[in-house]
Amino acid sequence: MQDKPYIVIMAGGIGSRFWPYSRKNRPKQFLDILGTGRSLLQMTYDRFRELAEPEQFIVVTNYRYTELILEQLPELNPEQVLAEPLRKNTATCIAYAAYKIQTFDPQATLIVTPADHLILQEKRFIQTINRAVLAAQIGDRLITIGIKPNRAETGYGYIQFLEGDNGSPALKVKTFTEKPNLKLAKTFIDSGDFVWNSGMFVWKVNSLLAAFAENMPDVAEVFEEGKSHFGKSTEGEFIDRAYTMLKNVSIDYGIMEKSDKVYVILGDFGWSDLGSWHSLHELQEKDGNNNVIEGNALLYETTNSYVKMDTDKLVVIEGLDNYLINESDNVLLICKLGGEKKFRDFVLNAKKKGEDFV
Amino acid sequence: MQDKPYIVIMAGGIGSRFWPYSRKNRPKQFLDILGTGRSLLQMTYDRFRELAEPEQFIVVTNYRYTELILEQLPELNPEQVLAEPLRKNTATCIAYAAYKIQTFDPQATLIVTPADHLILQEKRFIQTINRAVLAAQIGDRLITIGIKPNRAETGYGYIQFLEGDNGSPALKVKTFTEKPNLKLAKTFIDSGDFVWNSGMFVWKVNSLLAAFAENMPDVAEVFEEGKSHFGKSTEGEFIDRAYTMLKNVSIDYGIMEKSDKVYVILGDFGWSDLGSWHSLHELQEKDGNNNVIEGNALLYETTNSYVKMDTDKLVVIEGLDNYLINESDNVLLICKLGGEKKFRDFVLNAKKKGEDFV
Repeated sequence: MQDKPYIVIMAGGIGSRFWPYSRKNRPKQFLDILGTGRSLLQMTYDRFRELAEPEQFIVVTNYRYTELILEQLPELNPEQVLAEPLRKNTATCIAYAAYKIQTFDPQATLIVTPADHLILQEKRFIQTINRAVLAAQIGDRLITIGIKPNRAETGYGYIQFLEGDNGSPALKVKTFTEKPNLKLAKTFIDSGDFVWNSGMFVWKVNSLLAAFAENMPDVAEVFEEGKSHFGKSTEGEFIDRAYTMLKNVSIDYGIMEKSDKVYVILGDFGWSDLGSWHSLHELQEKDGNNNVIEGNALLYETTNSYVKMDTDKLVVIEGLDNYLINESDNVLLICKLGGEKKFRDFVLNAKKKGEDFV
Repeated sequence: MQDKPYIVIMAGGIGSRFWPYSRKNRPKQFLDILGTGRSLLQMTYDRFRELAEPEQFIVVTNYRYTELILEQLPELNPEQVLAEPLRKNTATCIAYAAYKIQTFDPQATLIVTPADHLILQEKRFIQTINRAVLAAQIGDRLITIGIKPNRAETGYGYIQFLEGDNGSPALKVKTFTEKPNLKLAKTFIDSGDFVWNSGMFVWKVNSLLAAFAENMPDVAEVFEEGKSHFGKSTEGEFIDRAYTMLKNVSIDYGIMEKSDKVYVILGDFGWSDLGSWHSLHELQEKDGNNNVIEGNALLYETTNSYVKMDTDKLVVIEGLDNYLINESDNVLLICKLGGEKKFRDFVLNAKKKGEDFV
């Protein structure tokens, strides 16, 4: 049996799809988005503490959030927080953590997880992860966690798997598919051999580094050459240089879609990537007209909407269906709920109005 | 030729149709609603200063606004502000001013005007009022100012007049009609002998008191009996008593619809009663999508709407047509523009949430 795994939390997102509630200096993962008293990052940490000691956590984040991480997770030492100088997608982020961990524990098993997802059934989640950790010990397997889908969601990526053998829980992966259109999503669901891509991975560090060497040799080369800097005063300088050299590539695209060592462990534990106001609306408690109300509101002929105010001001709303009304600090947003494609524009143009609006 | 007329400004309205911008302790007439630097009350005063000296103004208002009146019109003495203990509609308000003025100037001519209307062409307005003042000197005539209509507005009252004789500008009034439905309003406009009821009146004080004696003898009786209190320390006490006794009746209903001495002077001077957000939207400068924007706003696919924010917060709005978005102090209102019938409900229910929301 392996030692306890390392938990690599990817916490560098800027969460613009929850703007204006999430902001550049306090993105989604740092928010107590469900009002539980713990941020999504803290909930992620709590969840994995079942599996690992505090010193086995590594959080990778943008340099501007390192203080915030240590504030929210005071159990961590500063060396456990890896600061990225730029956003270079998941492949680079994971490579940084993996090459660093390998320098001091080459036998390590890593669990890689986003910081900002929601998981409702923690016990089933832990069981699934434990199965994945076991499965990752066989050969050089790269394990991904697939979620049993309950609807033809077009906001998620999908993983197609092949039938397993001998009752092994790890199923060989056939394809990865980015967010499909509705028709394709329905076909996936009907086929029965597609699951949602949760963005969580389990692998031995050596399996992963072998996969980098094979599928992303440029990444492997940069980090292999820089290994000597890890844990030294020159680490930051090296990372700054490395990040400017490396491409913006996701781990799915860079490795998981290419490697033949990829397996999926199926999970069913009440998962959501909380990727939008719409997904949050789905989860929250609603009034008789399917409205989520957080704040002091009076609604007239208003349905399927999400009202979230950060002050005790009174908001009176008449005649809206399927709208988001969010006031956060110095921004009020009124827009269609589910129109996430617009958010990039909203934030971009808000930024032109002033840096303190984003 | 008579002396300069007295100007009776009725300034007791609570302006709930501009809620939340207008509030219980600062209703519409006290607001600089057009951003000119002067409130509607002040603009009314300025307009009539062409016709009267400061000491000839009488402002009738609710007791809670007397300080505000003297703040906004520092030219007035406290005795020129008549405090009503209750809202008892225009008949009572006008009776109070008229009986009081009669005690010190029985030959007075009065011009009665709301405090919160908009007049764009002041020169033509003054000409019209001067004609009305002259017309009021003949017999016991009660003169009302009628506005030449430019649309089948359903938010105004209408006055039907008979053809005049000998080119006299004062036309005998046939009927008063409260806000008609659209079909009726169209008939009125087509007929050519209907004008809008502006709520402005001109009469000699004695003509008016005779009309009270004839048409509202209960009002006449109360004020005749109380005359001795005017200008004395007991005036307030008497008024408190009188107001509890008197009915809530408009001058239109109580006198103008009944008396056979009612004449109308036609005016055409860019008038609006500013009775709603909708009427204000009509008047204000608009962007290319017919939106009025007062504040720091980014609009996407938004048309025919009115955005008014009282802070420099950024408001981002997507996908609204014909909506009002007003944030004033501790209230945010989002509702259909033109849905003024709802405002009574809005304010009533807001009040239940807290007195400081209304």
